[in-house]
This record gives sequence, C-alpha cells and structure tokens, in this order.
Amino acid sequence: MLEFTITATDGAARRGVLKTAHGEMETPGFFAVATRAALKGLDPVAARRAGVQALICNSYHLHVQPGGDAVAAAGGLHPFMGWEGVLATDSGGFQVFSLRHGQVAEELKGRRRLPVADSADDPLEAVRVDEGGADFRSYLDGSRHRFTPENNMELQRRLGADVLFCLDECTPFHVPEAYTRDATERNARWARRCLDAFAGLGLGERQSLYGIVHGGVYPELRRWSATEIAGLGFDGFGIGDCLGETKADWYRVVDLVCPLLPAERPRHLLGVGEPDDLVEGALRGIDSFDCAMPTRIARHGQALAWGRPRFRLDLGAADRGREDGPIEDGCPCSACTRFDRAYIHHLVRAREMLAISLLAEHNLTFTARLLARVRDAISAGRLRELRLELLG
Amino acid sequence: MLEFTITATDGAARRGVLKTAHGEMETPGFFAVATRAALKGLDPVAARRAGVQALICNSYHLHVQPGGDAVAAAGGLHPFMGWEGVLATDSGGFQVFSLRHGQVAEELKGRRRLPVADSADDPLEAVRVDEGGADFRSYLDGSRHRFTPENNMELQRRLGADVLFCLDECTPFHVPEAYTRDATERNARWARRCLDAFAGLGLGERQSLYGIVHGGVYPELRRWSATEIAGLGFDGFGIGDCLGETKADWYRVVDLVCPLLPAERPRHLLGVGEPDDLVEGALRGIDSFDCAMPTRIARHGQALAWGRPRFRLDLGAADRGREDGPIEDGCPCSACTRFDRAYIHHLVRAREMLAISLLAEHNLTFTARLLARVRDAISAGRLRELRLELLG
Repeated sequence: MLEFTITATDGAARRGVLKTAHGEMETPGFFAVATRAALKGLDPVAARRAGVQALICNSYHLHVQPGGDAVAAAGGLHPFMGWEGVLATDSGGFQVFSLRHGQVAEELKGRRRLPVADSADDPLEAVRVDEGGADFRSYLDGSRHRFTPENNMELQRRLGADVLFCLDECTPFHVPEAYTRDATERNARWARRCLDAFAGLGLGERQSLYGIVHGGVYPELRRWSATEIAGLGFDGFGIGDCLGETKADWYRVVDLVCPLLPAERPRHLLGVGEPDDLVEGALRGIDSFDCAMPTRIARHGQALAWGRPRFRLDLGAADRGREDGPIEDGCPCSACTRFDRAYIHHLVRAREMLAISLLAEHNLTFTARLLARVRDAISAGRLRELRLELLG
Repeated sequence: MLEFTITATDGAARRGVLKTAHGEMETPGFFAVATRAALKGLDPVAARRAGVQALICNSYHLHVQPGGDAVAAAGGLHPFMGWEGVLATDSGGFQVFSLRHGQVAEELKGRRRLPVADSADDPLEAVRVDEGGADFRSYLDGSRHRFTPENNMELQRRLGADVLFCLDECTPFHVPEAYTRDATERNARWARRCLDAFAGLGLGERQSLYGIVHGGVYPELRRWSATEIAGLGFDGFGIGDCLGETKADWYRVVDLVCPLLPAERPRHLLGVGEPDDLVEGALRGIDSFDCAMPTRIARHGQALAWGRPRFRLDLGAADRGREDGPIEDGCPCSACTRFDRAYIHHLVRAREMLAISLLAEHNLTFTARLLARVRDAISAGRLRELRLELLG
C-alpha cells in the first residue's frame, strides 16, 4: 500500500502525506541513508528524536552481507533493525555500477571525471551488463553475483521495505550520448520486467514499487524516459541517473521531468540532499529526497549550519575550541542543547565516536527542521519567499 | 565534600553511599572510564540509562588535549562534558609511566612482560622521574611536559572533578623489589605534597582527594605504604600499583591492605572491573572500581554475559548470525530490549558504529546490574552465597 495525499500546493511545489504499512511521512520529506541497515552513529530512537521520518537501505550491501535470507529470517528489515517508520530499499544498481564506472557517486556530483571501462575483457572490469542483468563481484570477498530485474525484486521483497526501487544502470556524467541512450532504453525494459516480477510476487498489499527516470543530461532522453516510465503505472517515481555537473544542470532535469510524471503520485530525487537542494527540489515539485551527506559529513567533524560556506561548520577547526554556545541557537538536538562547540571540537580532535553521533543527530535534525519549514511555507503559499530568505 | 555512609556490612564487605557536590553513588559502585571526557560510544544520557553512577576521566589525556585551561573555561569537566553525576579524575601518573614501562596496563594484568627501560640516556626513554616530579612527552605531538604533585593538583583542580587522585608512579610487575621500594617511598612523599598542595588550593569544599596505596606484590611494602598513606588522612584511598600476575595475587594485596585503611573512608580498587573482580573485591571491602573493559570490549564486538568463557559473548562469531533473542534475557539495555543477536552480529561484521554503542550500553548495564545485586546481597548478609551462585 502507498497512499499519497497532496494537502497543499504552491506553484509546482506540493505538500503531502505518504502513507505506508509502517506509518506515514510528511512530504517534502527525507529518507536518511542506512546503507547496511544502520544509520552511521545513531540508533532508531535517536533518529526519531532527530525528526527522521524515513530510512533507505541498500540492497547491494545487504545482499552481500548479511544476505536476504538472514534479513527475511528476522521478519524483514523493520524488525531486524528496529525501525518502525517508513523504509525504502534502493535496488543496488547504483552501487553495482559504481564498480563499472569507478566512483560514480563522486562523478554524478560533478567532482570527478573518470574513464569509462567499457571492455568486457578488462580484468579490472568488475561488472558486466547484458540484456538479462548485471554480473558483479562482492566488495567483501570478490565472489561473483548476478542481479536481474526478477531476482532483485525477489531480494527486495525479502528485505521487506515499504518502498522498493527498480533495478537500473546509473550512468556517469562523461559518457557519450549513445551510451546513455542504450542504458536508458535498457533501464526502461528492466523497469517493465521489475513491474511484472513485482506484480507476480503479489506484494502490492504491503510494498510499493518506484520506477526511475533516466536519460542523463540529455533532454530528449529524459523526456523519452519520463514518458516511458510514467506510462508503466508505478506507485511512485524516482529521478535518477546522472543529474549533471552543476546544480543548474539538475534543476533543468527536474524542471523537464516533473511535468511529465503523474501529478498524483510521489516523486523522489535520488541521492540529493544539501540544504539548498531540498528547497530547490521542493520548489520544482519533488516530494522526497535521500542523501548520505548528513551522516557522512558528521564523520568528518562537520555540522550543517546556515551562513557558512556550503552550509558547513567545521568543528575540527582551531577557532571552535574557544567557542561557547551551541552549533546552532534554538536547535533542539542533543548536540545543541547539551554541549558547547568547544566540547564538540575537543571530541572531533580526540577522534571520539561521540562526536560523530552528536553531529549526525544535529545534521539530521537540521535537515528535518528545514523540510518542516519548507512544508509550512508551501501551506502558506510562500516557498519562494523562504528560498529568498534562506538562500538569498 | 565527600560524605561516605556505610549502611550495611557483610563480613569485610560494606554497602554505602558516597555523596559528592554532584550527586551520590551507591557503593560498591563503578566508575566508567571516560578517558578524554567522553565514554567511547555513549553520551551521558545513554550512560545514565545504563545505570552508570560515576565517571573517571584522565588528567594526562586532558592535559595534552584540550588542556586544563579549555576545560576550566567551560566551568570544569561537569558542564564541559554534560555529566551531572559523580566524577573522578585520575592523576595521569599511570599513563605517564606507561611510557616509561611500555604497555604497563597490559603488564599489570599479567598479560605481558616487558623489559624496564632504566637508563635516562635511552633515546626511547620518554619519561624521566626525579624527586620533584616526572618529565614526559605528549603522545600527540612529542612536546615536553612535567607533572609535579603541585602542578598536578592544580591541573585536577581546574578539571573540577569531585574525586581527585594523587600523582604517583605505577610500577610494573617484573621490576626488582628495590625499584618498587624506591617508587613506593617516593609515592608516599608525593602523596604528602599532593595533600599539602590540595589543602593550599582550598578545594576541600567541593573536591576530595584520594591517596593511593603502593608496594607492588611485596607484602612488606604494601603494609608500609598502606600505613603511611592511611596516616596522612585522605578523603578516600585507592589501591594502585602493580596488583600481581594472577587474580589470587590481587586478592592477597587487597586482603592485606583493606584492614590497614580507616574503616569509615571509601576504598577504590584502581583499574579492575571484570564481573568476578567486582564480586571478589566487594567481598574484601572494596567500595568502588574503575575499568575501561566494558567499553573496550564493545569495540571488539564482545558483550558481557554469564555462562561464557571469561564472561564474554563474541557477537562477531559466525553462530551469532543465526541467533534470535537478545544478548541476555531480562537485560533492560537498548541492545537487549530492541535487537536480536543476529542484528548485532551483522553490525559487528559490517563494522557499524552502532554495534559499539549498543555493546557499550549493554556492558555498562551488565556491570551496574551486577553491582546492584552485590549491594542487595550485602544488605541481606548473603554476599558469599551470591558469589557461589554467580562464580561457582
């Protein structure tokens, strides 16, 4: 089941409620990334306290360890990891193809340019794609595995999340248009197979499937993919694949794609979640986001904060050691209500785990509070004013 | 201030309450080790939930980073680290002399035998002791520092804990008796200087000072040290220095020392805290313990548990991945009430931080619950029966 109710609109922006078998999330909302069935540094109770409404786990990592059987034996991810809220699983396609394309995650954000290893004979080529699926190696022990749309749906069924994503190849930025076209067309064929497999498994009662729009930075391919995927009648829609090199690039992609998707179904922007992204995405009609950044930068001693370069306060910086006061005035998180910056600076310098937990809680709280403001602004018809206020 | 009230006795064992300016702890009780002003993996709220009554921080580590001034600027360790309960600081002598004697911590427990570097000309000799104090190098940047009884008391005053310990040299196991005698005698002279410095700083209102009994494994030296230190009139007494190679060794030391200490003052056994140690120590008249073990073994994927070799359940072991049920039935900690062993096994294997936090909380909860049983057994006059029941 996946009920999606839009309760307010403001231009292209929508406020709504996504209802699953494991509770609801308000949209625009955020899926915090719990790759291996755990948020890095926070238990589920602390995550709830931070305002986390939904988590997304990764099928590739969980397939490699502990495996779908182990999770199924525990009754699925919800009981396994003690999470009672909305939960999604990524297909793992993104991670599988990271092996093919190098650090595709970095490249999708425009920070790296890596050569594409195209030869199937390349000994470094860890992934082989054919029409049927993708062969890949475990990052743990090098063992060989294969994902097909069909076995990936079966895997995600056993993992038991509320929201599943279709298996797809996620192309990096610097591939020729022809490569992206081939991948986009194959992704559409895989999406249909995922939908068939999903229907065949009879999961619709408790689980829902999102299709993913591809096409890289090429408008024609995006248009084709959005129309094709929208026509298949998924429960919701992800906007995936390479979103370009700059923020303006992904604004263009989202501006192009959203109007082609059914207005009444939820839209998820994959792998994006900087503070400005959340506002800009909501303005363009995005209903949910996921991003590992809030917990990842916590491990680097960084806190999300307004008025700082790239919205980051570096708690490891020397100045912080002399600073009274919380990371952010008025923030209700454990870090801000109970500790001065000077203490968190000390923890970061001392490499104490507690620094990571406190900063992860702050960064997720920051993200949740920002989205609450976005939702209220939509209800009040003033999301553009909020953008001006926050982002200038 | 340090009020100590004995509320029940059972042979040599005593139950009591230790009252400080920052709250009380029931004794026999446990100081959890927060070396760098943080428990590894737990924030103060989680520590309270685990039943932690008291923490002990390390003056050496805090002197090196962030420094006494930074802690004093925050108003002392209690506000700095957000801990509102009983708090102690070790003098740092143990850590300083770990540099001199190699891994003294390991050796004190009888697990290693290292040569003693005695030559002051040894380029590897990082510590030099003279009558006045000890020169040592920072473990962070190699910079030179000096601890004297006087400046160590000043440092601990600025750190602001409730219970302070005298600066001392902690000798390792395999040193000649003559070396231990010299150190024991110098430690007694340093103890007097600590007491004078402490009195001179006028701290008695809010802070208290423990003397430490030395003498290694040599009964005559232990007897001499206990009598000497007891005669100086400290607020409480630590039993420190090398406690021998086997558990029987330390039982003998404690059996010898406790009767020589004033019955009405608290006695702390330094660096000891295995489950059997807590019972055996309490039986011999120990009022408090400190030990890094509960949080340290958490980082190695181990949970304290009854009926297991050395009271440890290895959550990383392959069998755990198929096990339903909590680490320990009836344990009220977050790990046991919310997760199966199979999930914690997965977290350990995946090297997720959450494993460490959950296991630290369990291990501290286990320790707190055991000591609650010890206290109840003392009140009921059946501590020997409890020992039999728990340890056979």
